[in-house]
Amino acid sequence: MEFDLIARHFTRATPGAVLGVGDDCALLAPTPEMQLAVSTDMLLEGRHFSPQDSPAGLGHKSLAVNLSDLAAMGATPRWATLAIALPEANDAWLTAFARGFFRMADQHGIELVGGDTTRGALTLSITVIGEVPPGQALRRDGAQAGDDVWVSGVIGSAALALAYRQGRLFMEQIDAAKVLPALYLPTPQVALGIALRGIATSAIDISDGLLGDLWHILERSRVGASLEFAALPTLPLVKNYLHEAVARDCVLAGGDDYELCFTAPADRRDAVAAAAQSAGVAVTRVGRITDEPGLAVTDADGRPLPFDHIGYDHFAA
Amino acid sequence: MEFDLIARHFTRATPGAVLGVGDDCALLAPTPEMQLAVSTDMLLEGRHFSPQDSPAGLGHKSLAVNLSDLAAMGATPRWATLAIALPEANDAWLTAFARGFFRMADQHGIELVGGDTTRGALTLSITVIGEVPPGQALRRDGAQAGDDVWVSGVIGSAALALAYRQGRLFMEQIDAAKVLPALYLPTPQVALGIALRGIATSAIDISDGLLGDLWHILERSRVGASLEFAALPTLPLVKNYLHEAVARDCVLAGGDDYELCFTAPADRRDAVAAAAQSAGVAVTRVGRITDEPGLAVTDADGRPLPFDHIGYDHFAA
Repeated sequence: MEFDLIARHFTRATPGAVLGVGDDCALLAPTPEMQLAVSTDMLLEGRHFSPQDSPAGLGHKSLAVNLSDLAAMGATPRWATLAIALPEANDAWLTAFARGFFRMADQHGIELVGGDTTRGALTLSITVIGEVPPGQALRRDGAQAGDDVWVSGVIGSAALALAYRQGRLFMEQIDAAKVLPALYLPTPQVALGIALRGIATSAIDISDGLLGDLWHILERSRVGASLEFAALPTLPLVKNYLHEAVARDCVLAGGDDYELCFTAPADRRDAVAAAAQSAGVAVTRVGRITDEPGLAVTDADGRPLPFDHIGYDHFAA
Repeated sequence: MEFDLIARHFTRATPGAVLGVGDDCALLAPTPEMQLAVSTDMLLEGRHFSPQDSPAGLGHKSLAVNLSDLAAMGATPRWATLAIALPEANDAWLTAFARGFFRMADQHGIELVGGDTTRGALTLSITVIGEVPPGQALRRDGAQAGDDVWVSGVIGSAALALAYRQGRLFMEQIDAAKVLPALYLPTPQVALGIALRGIATSAIDISDGLLGDLWHILERSRVGASLEFAALPTLPLVKNYLHEAVARDCVLAGGDDYELCFTAPADRRDAVAAAAQSAGVAVTRVGRITDEPGLAVTDADGRPLPFDHIGYDHFAA
């Protein structure tokens, strides 16, 4: 049966599971004393990715964005399920997709333990399960006034790459090559999330844009924040190719970077730096959590900068 | 934002979770010593359900078919995630869908702890997590030669209802009313699955037809089976409305009943009966597991009956 053929692409040994693909359910033995972090995502062709995207890249990214949710909780990735609708059983496509998916899975020690395959417009739904010690998850509701706001890596690159890819922006190829990986092969900051357990007071991954995602932390923590625009880590390319207002929007509201935005007490700056170093990731202090609700972005002189919108709404767009 | 409006339909108190909807991940504290049973499903409009189907019924059925996978493992339902693509944020539709979904969830003590919502053709992907004591899961690979083969409830009703609903079969309304619930409001045999822990040697839920699903047990257990057709539990309606050969196909290969097919040692018949009684479900002994591989269906005189196909292939169809 074609159906079995497809299943075979996604059936591999799962030494970390009691029972993997092939029964009514997978059977998993969680590590004693650990809590589970669970997240689910649905990606649609034409909305979250394009028919022109490489299947290997799609395999990479579809799992990466879910691992990013585990990273934002400080959880250790353990198990994943994949439900996929496909217009046809295209063996070459499946082989490439599985290669990208399992390369990302192997990098982060996550095992595919279950799934479902059906015929339909290309749709991917992934659920990931990670583990985190009780009380150490990086939630959105723990930010305190006085905390520093931090960002990992650089932001705005994926938005720049998308504008280029959609023909809305001209870039030299050599420059495009510097930002396209951010869009197509994002790196979930799993090691950083784990290293920040017990240090960060809150965290979120930047999928919908810095302001929109930070806003979720502010809402849940009932605090405000002030960011210094000049401190935000971004590639010089962004300013080279974009007018000032557009560059600002790209950095503040550009989605899909999958970096972490997190908060930590000001007296834990050394611990944050050590965690980042152990994870091999750059982190940048970009602002401060405030008592007063609201979100302000200031220039180097402390004057408020205007910004257009806070984030990307998957449904309204 | 529309997006938030949708999320609100699916955000309820989750006393069984450390943290429910609203963060990067849900946080769950599994019961010490228990293993997790995890299953995922994707349902597409036009393939698994019709645009005419009631949204409340769809909410019921989409969760029921996943609970049926937990039932087939003997797992106690705990948590679910729901990823949903919708063409528009239709409040009435969402209200009705959520009502059906949560009524089913409440019946079985499962909590919706996470999800994702996006715009697109109506698509549902649900992942369920249950718990089962180590070594007590009802797997597909434990059937032994000499075991009895059992079926819960009645089978063939959903296939009959589908034929009626699609206009391929005339039925009196009073009769149609007897089979339509099997198709639209299936009952996952959760209590029976749990009661069969330590008794059944293997189990599967009948989603693709008895023969096809039993075949999975035979393959994984490396055994064969012989079924007595006359013993198969089915409503008299099936024979009243269908010619003999069609009725046979309906009972042997009709999908969507979500009853359990399971095996148990012949000396545990009393225990099976007691388990069924405690779960309030009828069970019927329909055959025997054999040493020789293969699957035979015999008439009352032990003569082999011909049958056309073994099951329904979601991809080839």
